[in-house]
Amino acid sequence: MTTALIHERLQSQLAFHTEIDKLKRVIRRNSLIDGSRRENDAEHSWHLGVMAMTLAEHAPPGTDMARVVAMLLVHDIVEIDAGDTFIYDSVAVEGQAALERAAADRIFGLLPEDQGAGLRGLWDEFEERRTPEARFARALDRLAPIIANHHNEGGTWSLYKVTARQVMEKVRLIEEGSPTLGEYAAGLVSASVARGHLAP
Amino acid sequence: MTTALIHERLQSQLAFHTEIDKLKRVIRRNSLIDGSRRENDAEHSWHLGVMAMTLAEHAPPGTDMARVVAMLLVHDIVEIDAGDTFIYDSVAVEGQAALERAAADRIFGLLPEDQGAGLRGLWDEFEERRTPEARFARALDRLAPIIANHHNEGGTWSLYKVTARQVMEKVRLIEEGSPTLGEYAAGLVSASVARGHLAP
Ligand SMILES: [Ca+2]
Repeated sequence: MTTALIHERLQSQLAFHTEIDKLKRVIRRNSLIDGSRRENDAEHSWHLGVMAMTLAEHAPPGTDMARVVAMLLVHDIVEIDAGDTFIYDSVAVEGQAALERAAADRIFGLLPEDQGAGLRGLWDEFEERRTPEARFARALDRLAPIIANHHNEGGTWSLYKVTARQVMEKVRLIEEGSPTLGEYAAGLVSASVARGHLAP
Repeated sequence: MTTALIHERLQSQLAFHTEIDKLKRVIRRNSLIDGSRRENDAEHSWHLGVMAMTLAEHAPPGTDMARVVAMLLVHDIVEIDAGDTFIYDSVAVEGQAALERAAADRIFGLLPEDQGAGLRGLWDEFEERRTPEARFARALDRLAPIIANHHNEGGTWSLYKVTARQVMEKVRLIEEGSPTLGEYAAGLVSASVARGHLAP
């Protein structure tokens, strides 16, 4: 590669880095585990990355964990433009898809073309949930807020009147990625119902 | 592995995940790129992980980027107990080492032993800077606040009266990990001096 090309690519890469700093200002519905404030997408993505590294043994054998980590680190970047969608708001979830695709075009498009295509591929894979990597990544993305709500006397479940039946639909997605983590999540749901923090 | 052992390990892993949520409340000196608030360690670690993924071509050939990403995601976890140290405060930097080792023992010690040792090894490697992976990870860790300060009219440099000569010592660490990124950082330092945002 010529020095000029290296610098041209570096400029694009750094424009992308400056842009994605905004993910730190996209605020999710759920709180931190101590309930002190709501979580942002960047710190959420970090937490999922470390979870993948340390929960790897609960994924199907052969799952490429470096790919899962990479997928989790970029999976919410589209929310810089599209905003966070509450997973129990099905009307919002539908309109969201087109917004998110446009966001992916714009933001991953800041990178040199080969790299933009690579991250776009990771994000598409996450959304489509067809590979074990994507299903495990999605499982962690669904597990994290269940843990947070369990620690916060119901958290967003109480706030938005979500029922255990609705949460159990998300638990199925966890089971698809990891039976062990699915079983664990189902246990948290039951425990939250038993404590009166989640309506049956 | 027996079901009982799987569950025992999962309990330890989830205790670790709950504990490291606290990294989201460890506040660094530098601001977000838009200057709106100070950055926390968790979102900073996320940003470095994505930077590693997309700046890989500026690392020495053969650098294991999955290892760099893993190292960056865990490199600040010890600050949950030890707090953030401002890199230009050399007295604080000295006393910090023992505190950080104790923090590593406690926090990585929450995980099953084999995994705790694995993450501790990654953290030691990052601190010792003897591998290309550690030197590249460190380069990104030093580059990120230079970019933030450059966008924030000097940011922590103005606030804490840091000089370009001091910043250039950190730029040497960037050069050790990546000559291209070192050169880029040196350019930002010169530009900040020229604009009057950094004292020579
Ligand atoms: Ca999400």
